Amino acid sequence: MPDAAFPDITVLTLEEKAALTSGLDFWRLKAIDRLGVPSIMMTDGPHGLRKQAGASDHLGLNASVPATCFPPAVGLGASWDPELATRVGAAIGREAALEDVAVVLGPGVNIKRSVRCGRNFEYFSEDPIHASNMGSGIVRGIQSQGVGASVKHFAANNQETDRMRVSSDVDPRPLREIYLRAFQGIVEDEQPWTVMCSYNRVNGVYVSEDPFLLTEVLRDEWGFEGLVVSDWGASNVRTAGIRAGMDLEMPASGGVTDRQLVEAVRDGSLDEADLDRSAARVLTLIRRATERASVEGALDVDAHHALAREAAGRSIVMLKNDGGLLPLRPTQKIAVIGEFAEKPRFQGGGSSHINPTRVDVALDAIRQVAPEATYAPGYVLPDAPEGIGMSAVRSSKPAPEVQDRLRAEAVEAAAVADVAVVFVGLPDEDESEGFDRDHIDLPAEHLALIDAVAAANPNVVVVLSNGGVVALPFADRVPAILETWLLGQAGGSGTADVLFGAVNPSGRLAESFPHRLEDTPAFSSFPGEGQHVRYGEGIHVGYRWYDARAIDVAFPFGHGLSYTAFTYGDVSASSNASGGIDIVVDVTNMGPVVGREVVQAYVSVPGSAVVRAPRELKAFQSVEIQPGETVTVALSVRRRDLAYWEVRTDQWIVEPSDYCVEVGASSRDLRGSAVVSLAGDDLVIPVSSDASVGDAFAHPVVGPVARRSLESSPFGAFMMHEGELTPMGRDMPLSRLVSFGVSPDLLSRILDVGK
Amino acid sequence: MPDAAFPDITVLTLEEKAALTSGLDFWRLKAIDRLGVPSIMMTDGPHGLRKQAGASDHLGLNASVPATCFPPAVGLGASWDPELATRVGAAIGREAALEDVAVVLGPGVNIKRSVRCGRNFEYFSEDPIHASNMGSGIVRGIQSQGVGASVKHFAANNQETDRMRVSSDVDPRPLREIYLRAFQGIVEDEQPWTVMCSYNRVNGVYVSEDPFLLTEVLRDEWGFEGLVVSDWGASNVRTAGIRAGMDLEMPASGGVTDRQLVEAVRDGSLDEADLDRSAARVLTLIRRATERASVEGALDVDAHHALAREAAGRSIVMLKNDGGLLPLRPTQKIAVIGEFAEKPRFQGGGSSHINPTRVDVALDAIRQVAPEATYAPGYVLPDAPEGIGMSAVRSSKPAPEVQDRLRAEAVEAAAVADVAVVFVGLPDEDESEGFDRDHIDLPAEHLALIDAVAAANPNVVVVLSNGGVVALPFADRVPAILETWLLGQAGGSGTADVLFGAVNPSGRLAESFPHRLEDTPAFSSFPGEGQHVRYGEGIHVGYRWYDARAIDVAFPFGHGLSYTAFTYGDVSASSNASGGIDIVVDVTNMGPVVGREVVQAYVSVPGSAVVRAPRELKAFQSVEIQPGETVTVALSVRRRDLAYWEVRTDQWIVEPSDYCVEVGASSRDLRGSAVVSLAGDDLVIPVSSDASVGDAFAHPVVGPVARRSLESSPFGAFMMHEGELTPMGRDMPLSRLVSFGVSPDLLSRILDVGK
Repeated sequence: MPDAAFPDITVLTLEEKAALTSGLDFWRLKAIDRLGVPSIMMTDGPHGLRKQAGASDHLGLNASVPATCFPPAVGLGASWDPELATRVGAAIGREAALEDVAVVLGPGVNIKRSVRCGRNFEYFSEDPIHASNMGSGIVRGIQSQGVGASVKHFAANNQETDRMRVSSDVDPRPLREIYLRAFQGIVEDEQPWTVMCSYNRVNGVYVSEDPFLLTEVLRDEWGFEGLVVSDWGASNVRTAGIRAGMDLEMPASGGVTDRQLVEAVRDGSLDEADLDRSAARVLTLIRRATERASVEGALDVDAHHALAREAAGRSIVMLKNDGGLLPLRPTQKIAVIGEFAEKPRFQGGGSSHINPTRVDVALDAIRQVAPEATYAPGYVLPDAPEGIGMSAVRSSKPAPEVQDRLRAEAVEAAAVADVAVVFVGLPDEDESEGFDRDHIDLPAEHLALIDAVAAANPNVVVVLSNGGVVALPFADRVPAILETWLLGQAGGSGTADVLFGAVNPSGRLAESFPHRLEDTPAFSSFPGEGQHVRYGEGIHVGYRWYDARAIDVAFPFGHGLSYTAFTYGDVSASSNASGGIDIVVDVTNMGPVVGREVVQAYVSVPGSAVVRAPRELKAFQSVEIQPGETVTVALSVRRRDLAYWEVRTDQWIVEPSDYCVEVGASSRDLRGSAVVSLAGDDLVIPVSSDASVGDAFAHPVVGPVARRSLESSPFGAFMMHEGELTPMGRDMPLSRLVSFGVSPDLLSRILDVGK
Repeated sequence: MPDAAFPDITVLTLEEKAALTSGLDFWRLKAIDRLGVPSIMMTDGPHGLRKQAGASDHLGLNASVPATCFPPAVGLGASWDPELATRVGAAIGREAALEDVAVVLGPGVNIKRSVRCGRNFEYFSEDPIHASNMGSGIVRGIQSQGVGASVKHFAANNQETDRMRVSSDVDPRPLREIYLRAFQGIVEDEQPWTVMCSYNRVNGVYVSEDPFLLTEVLRDEWGFEGLVVSDWGASNVRTAGIRAGMDLEMPASGGVTDRQLVEAVRDGSLDEADLDRSAARVLTLIRRATERASVEGALDVDAHHALAREAAGRSIVMLKNDGGLLPLRPTQKIAVIGEFAEKPRFQGGGSSHINPTRVDVALDAIRQVAPEATYAPGYVLPDAPEGIGMSAVRSSKPAPEVQDRLRAEAVEAAAVADVAVVFVGLPDEDESEGFDRDHIDLPAEHLALIDAVAAANPNVVVVLSNGGVVALPFADRVPAILETWLLGQAGGSGTADVLFGAVNPSGRLAESFPHRLEDTPAFSSFPGEGQHVRYGEGIHVGYRWYDARAIDVAFPFGHGLSYTAFTYGDVSASSNASGGIDIVVDVTNMGPVVGREVVQAYVSVPGSAVVRAPRELKAFQSVEIQPGETVTVALSVRRRDLAYWEVRTDQWIVEPSDYCVEVGASSRDLRGSAVVSLAGDDLVIPVSSDASVGDAFAHPVVGPVARRSLESSPFGAFMMHEGELTPMGRDMPLSRLVSFGVSPDLLSRILDVGK
């Protein structure tokens, strides 16, 4: 429909405007037939389309049309490759366009605050720059197809427990620097069509009715021009939501909230301009959807499956490979062990649960390369939950003697093989949207299987299937571990590609693997209680915590091995015209096969005036390098990403300082460093009576006067030493000086200078 | 002056009332001569009197009259003996009475949140029950002499950095259960004459003007009947303080704030009744002071010094004594090493700094027993700061060659001795009121000395002098360690008493000794920035943190060795008539000498509905036991100390549950346990539309109706399984059910039941 014909907000009745701001049913927006405004559809799917096949039901749980299931964010994030994310996003966007879906509800870019969060598999990272770059890649891809993305769940929605009520109580610096940063980057760089507000409260206020987050931060500061849609059921008091900038309530309210809005405008309790603003945004969204040229043809299942396989291979992280046990050779006697090899778990439960076009099974894929490979299930997996797998109902456990027999058979198979490939992981019932884990352990029978097999054959490759981080108590006792996450529908073939070296693993951890749950940053506060969760670890999330407290981890953030070896040249770093940092480093593939290195740049600010993590990821690049080749890798750190949030003046500040740039293959495998001096932003703390003597002395105008006046006062005699303030003197508020012998007149004179 | 003659608030003019609410000078209150109301005096001194000798100066720093310096709280707290604290308090009270001092500004009962707090030496403990019992002991003693105590610093004043502005941002449970609990216990049990409000803010509000803390909590909830005095210079906006219940501003304001109050009453911005209330409390305090019979005679210096020596001996904690190296025998060749042996550090810098009546020196005291003991200083201590030692000015370091020579001489002395007693610790300039430490290390030359001496002679006894916890990297390399804290003026003789066994050590750690600063709970948030410090560790302070996270420590809370050995019989525990727990355990002295055991009772609540520390100290008793004797120790846990703070209903709740009582010699040396079942308090969560389905199902009245209604709705079909709620269903707010297919009418019917 051409733009000119599309109606303007001014021609809508009050009732029509109100109607636009809530859903028609579980997935569709309302049409305005008299004006030719069509109904458009949104569907779930950060890593593929979940479009319900029949009529929508009240909970959106009915079967959906087949779609390609790409690796969920936990996998794709491990590729550390926004360009790959863009290609996956474009494929999802094309599938949406083919199904006439206007908006795909993704990506999810929340920070993995706790390893226990049930929805971590839908999120990219414990680091905001990583999540921002990967999320931007997805949005770019989806929106390249004329389909809108919905960046979710905004904001500080980092757990499932009590998620519809819990208040994430988070201080300004972690809120800005950790939890909002990915959203900010994506909004500023990609202008997603929509942002989805989350269920929870932040510092006591429902996000769905928080003018600070939805308007002041999102629009006024970041320049967001799209529409805010509620997570499904996140709307609380609808009039408050409209005032705050929560434009579209989903799903349908049965007309109840539309009537509330109309009444509120009529009785004067809601400004009609507020409603107009939201309704206009809905209208704009519909218009954008209708502007997409209709897409011809059918889904190219094979091509998308091939992309899913490529993405799966790129998502796998080789955690360990002692003695070069991997890659396997087809001529080896291979024992494949573990029911996951036959019954893959390739996606998580919940709204992201996709009806895949096909599913590759690892055992089949392995046997295509090594037909003689033997197989023993080793354990019995619980039955998969019905539907989208959110029920969290525990299956009854198989009898111990069954597990014992299966384990014994697996040991027999391993004993006569050259190598045992043991598939273990978390069953569906252990993790899903809707609940959090209360531990990070693998099932006991899986752990027992690994130990038993390793005792029979030292050449063990453990292949992990899990959406959230798990403890790896066996890590020192097996030579090789592959982390295959949830890999989407082609995970089975992707895993075989890496096992046999058709794909050289290049995935890197986007989240730390701790030794113990007790070591994790949010251990003592997650998931809170009494409808509050305190983000007590502050900015020290993920590797920032382990580094600050010098805690050993099983595998650090950024870690991942390759079948080849990379060496790094000297790091050079310089400030650039945008005030950021340009980094150049030569990386050489010293090994015999082509491979990808993920070059990571971490920045620290020694001697910073504010609390800092020992290092923070600020830029990264996945680069393919031929055997013997040297590639010059150029990374750029953006100035905005160097800023900290200054709580005293409510602004982003780049500190004037030396910045130390460390470059390497993981957060704990740093290969070189360089120092860059940056001009900082001006930071002037106003001098009022609440200011400290130290603040006053530091002020460009007030300083000299305050120093001269106070040095010769009783204050100076006791609170200064050889012209320098003692700590007590430095921190004393000006207002208190009168209690310590400074005359009120003198104080007034000092304060007047600052006016 | 007889009570009848004392004027009532009603006869005072407005100006006189205002005048009463601030100081005359640094230490004295104003008189009202026309009514015969005298000026009374307050002085510093949690562990002795600091009454300034001449005219008060503007900062209260002039020299003070001699007084007995008892062990600061860090030492006395390690006695774990409230009865000893009472005797010390009574002695301080008597010295105050002799000097006609009305109120002694102590005890300090703040929790040692961070090992780095510069004022930790003035506080008792990292545990609130310990601090409460010890603080009560002091108050009981002081007030037994007709002198008022001032319990300080109320509240959440746990650091020196920016102490006059910083906001302690602390959630309700840690505030109530950790930071306020000691104050509450002392107020409820002892009714101190005064409470001193602290400099800092709590959750953004200056305590000196916080009606929540000063009136709602302190008076309405706890029943405090005394007066609130500001810490010196803690008053901010005086009218706000009067409204909040901050009765007395100290020191003098030069009449400025008195005039502000008069004007505010006149212009109607301050209710005169608020001023009357505070002025009446000041009047009552003056009346109580004048009611004390005048005390005749002079200070019995010897008797008080003897008590100081007893208290010093009781404060020492023997951390380690491998092979029974201690006690020393007078016949041994003893090398005394370290300048602290000759120049004792026995108190901390700041307002508590006392002019002692005499000072015992450890070297002298050792030579009284073993005249042949040799001495080598080993290192040069920095010059002691002038005055009360708050300047935090760094002395210039002695030349390295001087330290090297002294160390070499010490090694020579040690090499020819049977045993080397090495005195090390923190110099004055390393810790004081007014600033916090930025590390917990001993001086490098002290550490080097220990290593050098230990290499020359394995029989090393390390004697530590320090007000705050230090790292002990040598702990595994020396056989014996005595922690002697700051011990007051008789510390030297008290130390010799323990070294030679005249006193059998019975001190126990009231704070954990961590391996590393990075292990400590507040490591990543202390001391905050931008005028805020987040108490991010929540209730997990001190041993609660190390236990919850299973972190190894150097020496745990409650630890301390003896020259004898104690065995424990079976623990029996039962609920008592007050709803608390009575505990009985037999303890036997199995060794050859009399000794004191500190029997400690920790309580846990397995399966609690709220976050709990793995165990919490709830009762303790120091008991002297003769060789071979068995003593039946009876401990009582008060019901109030079993309650947690329920944030949903703002009340103390004792959970109906089994309570596990563990009894032992330290928090990590538990000798027996018993389980008691307690009837709990009623906890009813009101069911409004914000309530969750789980809350509604649990409600006694609403529950059956909600369950019946929802089971058969679409909600029930997807959110329940075999009659049980899924986690998502349990946590869903009732208000959101309409988005998921429940009719508004049905929801209203459910909510109506709860009304």
